[in-house]
Formats: sequence, C-alpha cells, structure tokens
Amino acid sequence: MEVFLNNTFIPASEARLPITDLAIQRGYGIFDFFRIQEGVHLYVEDHLDRFLYSAEVMRLPVKYGKDELIEILHELNRRNKMNSAGVRMVLTGGDSADAWQIGEPSLLVMQQPLQLDGAPALPKAVQAITHDYLRDVPQAKTINYTMGVWLQQRMRELNADDVLYHHHGKVAEFPRCNAFIVNEEGVVVTPHKDILTGITRKRLLEIDGVHEGPVTLNDVKTAREIFLTSSTKRIQSVVMLDGKPVGSGKPGPVATELLHLLLQKEREYIGAHA
Amino acid sequence: MEVFLNNTFIPASEARLPITDLAIQRGYGIFDFFRIQEGVHLYVEDHLDRFLYSAEVMRLPVKYGKDELIEILHELNRRNKMNSAGVRMVLTGGDSADAWQIGEPSLLVMQQPLQLDGAPALPKAVQAITHDYLRDVPQAKTINYTMGVWLQQRMRELNADDVLYHHHGKVAEFPRCNAFIVNEEGVVVTPHKDILTGITRKRLLEIDGVHEGPVTLNDVKTAREIFLTSSTKRIQSVVMLDGKPVGSGKPGPVATELLHLLLQKEREYIGAHA
Repeated sequence: MEVFLNNTFIPASEARLPITDLAIQRGYGIFDFFRIQEGVHLYVEDHLDRFLYSAEVMRLPVKYGKDELIEILHELNRRNKMNSAGVRMVLTGGDSADAWQIGEPSLLVMQQPLQLDGAPALPKAVQAITHDYLRDVPQAKTINYTMGVWLQQRMRELNADDVLYHHHGKVAEFPRCNAFIVNEEGVVVTPHKDILTGITRKRLLEIDGVHEGPVTLNDVKTAREIFLTSSTKRIQSVVMLDGKPVGSGKPGPVATELLHLLLQKEREYIGAHA
Repeated sequence: MEVFLNNTFIPASEARLPITDLAIQRGYGIFDFFRIQEGVHLYVEDHLDRFLYSAEVMRLPVKYGKDELIEILHELNRRNKMNSAGVRMVLTGGDSADAWQIGEPSLLVMQQPLQLDGAPALPKAVQAITHDYLRDVPQAKTINYTMGVWLQQRMRELNADDVLYHHHGKVAEFPRCNAFIVNEEGVVVTPHKDILTGITRKRLLEIDGVHEGPVTLNDVKTAREIFLTSSTKRIQSVVMLDGKPVGSGKPGPVATELLHLLLQKEREYIGAHA
C-alpha cells in the first residue's frame, strides 16, 4: 500500500510526520474522507470542494488545485489498485517552530480497505445516546475529535453505537455523521446549522420532501424515526435513544426508502463515471 | 538536540510519528509543558501529577511511573545539557488501525531553548480580546488547540496578544494561561471551574489573599486589574480588554507584587533542588 505525502508517493509503512507538526503539537488540521466504489471515487468533486473549504476556514494554504488533487487521487489508486476503498485526505497545521503558529501544511492522502454491502435491504439498526457538545468550528471538517474519541468508553458502558450532539436545546450532529428525523407530522428534517454539511446529507436533500431546519431535543424525543448519514454508513436507523425505543423500535419506512434512493444515486454516479 | 520517543533517545531531526497515530488522525492526545531554570526542572512533581491526571482523564495508559518519568527527564537533559529550556511531554492517542479507537500511546519528551528574564521589575503589559468558548474536556491538558490556533488571525487583526475564553457569562481561562482579576473590592480571584489548573496558578493560590471562585464577564469589565499566569509567561498584566483600558491601563500593583512573590518562590525551589 502506498500513500501520498508531501509531493511524493511512498509506502504507507514509511509515512511519518515530524513531531513538530501542528497536528501533533496542537491537534490542528483538517481532513476529508470518501469511498472508492467499483473503482470510482464517489462524489469526489463534492468532497474536494469541502476539503478546500475546510482548509480555507481553518486558514491552511493548499498548494494544489482541484484538478491536481484529482490527479493525485487517481495516481494513488493506479498504484494501490483498489476497487473498493476508503480514501482519507489530511491537511495538517504543518511544521511549527514555536508549536503555535501555522506552518506549511503537510498533505497526506491514504487509502484503506473498505467494502460495503452492495444492496442492503434495510438500514442497519443502531443505538445512540445524547451529549451536550458543540464542535469548535462546526462548518469545517477539522481533525479535532477529542470529544468523540473520549466518549467511546461511555458508549461502550451504555451499549451505544453512537452519540448525538446537542447544544442549547438544538440537535446538531453525530461525531462522524449527520442527523435526520421524521417528525410527528411525517416530515423529514436535518439540522441546518452548527453542523458539518455531509455529502450523503447533500444527496438526501436533493430528494423531494427532505428539508433542513431547526431540530430540537423535544423533536427528537417525539420523532417517528431518527437516522444518521455518512459516506461509510450511508443510512443507519437509530432505534434506541438514551435507552428508549424510537418509534417502532425498528428501522422505519422512510429511512428504508431513502436508503434505496441513495443506492440508486450511487449506481447512477458510478455508471456515469466508470 | 535529542528527544525521547517511545523508549529511546534519538536526534530531534529524526523524531517522527506514523501517520496512523490518533494525534494526526483525530487530534487526540495530552501534554504538559514546564521550564528548566538554572538546570532545575521547575515544579516537576506538580507537572508530572497533572500529566498523569490528564492521561487518566483522557483514558490514555502511561507505561511509566512518576520516578521513571523523572529519570527520563534528567537523562534527556544530561544529553542536551540545557541550563534553561522549555520541556514538552506529549502522550498521543497512539497507532490506531481504524483511526478511531485509542491505540498504544506514544510518549514524546522534547526540549527547546527558553530563557526568561531573571528579575523583571514589572509584569509585561498585554492586550486581550474575549471569545465565547469552552474547551472540550477543560480539566485535562489535551493537545486540542483548534480554537486557540484558529483565533490567532483575529488576534493579529485586532492587535491583541491573547484571548480570554468565557461561556454562559462565566470567565474561564486563556488558551494557554489562567486568568486572575483584582475585583472592585480589591480581592484577587481566579475562576474555579471549567479550567485547566495551572501550576503557576497553584503557586499564587498558596499566597494569602488569593482565592478561587466564580468570575463573571461583568466582574472582568469592572476589575481593577486583570492578569494571566503560565509557566512560560509567569504573570502578564492585561491592560486592554476588547479595546478598553483595564484599571489604570498599566500593570497594576497587585500583579506586580504577586510577580515578585512568584520569583521569590522560584528562587526558593531552585535553591532547594539545585
């Protein structure tokens, strides 16, 4: 397996960053993550737009344009020859002499084995807990997952698979996924602010009847369905929240229908880009 | 210059971490920082206690005891022979196969040149701005400085040297320093919760008349003096906050007296440990 690190392709086992990098010293950097499916970089334009936006928000200069980044991604997979994979692009704060000011960022692109079920009939059922938290700079995909990693032990203790962040009574997102509910009136809503705008979320918002808007903690408690979206999880149904069943306690009809529409969109994208 | 990295002393220029470390992937880790002054590791016991506490809070196993850590610190300085220095100990989330779960942490100890004025007559005068923010896990010294690093550009634009965090109307701390005020009644108070308990702060709390307790944004606006403390800055007077002068607009008598008492304590510690 090779990775791309600072202008060159090298074996993953040799890829290292100096201890003076601001990622190690101050946890400072941004990243993006997406999938290769049937040899196609799924929604790569959307992910690169978000990657470049995160970099801009966090004041990290990127010395490659979008076309150059796409070429790097393709060359990496020509070398690694993976038909299905996860792709992670990390842009670090860079080598910082004083461990405080932003340096010249390091760009890292790596692939990992990742194979999803080709045609799942139902969304996976997961259990979640809630936690009061707002990410530092929600609109950017920073590498700061201090809270998400830290909460893993509590999730294990409570037999939960994920955690839903809320703040000031408003629901925001999961550490690595967007949140959706089907409310009491049957309307599909995803929080509109203080979130990372996910690419799977974007695909769902293209579907009639899916809206963005405020979602309160009370909305979540009375929701018919709750589900999460991400590039690696597609759609998963939250069937238990803080130990209480959501709706029927099983993946619901809306999440199931949206999963099938999402899979259809994936097939169309792959068909158009293969 | 040598550093200690994972059980061995190596040249700093060769010290690197694998890209799969959770510090790089998720900004996850803890650290501590203190000074060597006149060859003495200043308040090293306090710093190691806090380092081990941060590690415990963040669920990072440390495979060395306090005595072993002290031996590592001493051996590193026998090799680097620095009479004055900053010492940084970092414990990362470790090599994580799935870029999510905590691995086996890497311990890094590095030194850097750092020479403070031996006998400053007055605290340095600095300007600060305020910002609504609460650190993720305030009681632990995590490596997450996403907000502090991100705010540097705003500080430069506003000609500010530092930023005072507050949340829900309560003042907490600066990104790398503790906050103190001399209130309208002349009492010295430092915030008591949602902060990192600094070692310089601890030294000041040993002095009669210095208290910990709630400090509101209003207290700060009406304070006679505001000052900050840290191991590298000792005491600095905030003479301008959000563009408005604090008290006389110059370093005040209380901060000045406390600085002299702090310097006296340093001399006593060094005298007892040289």
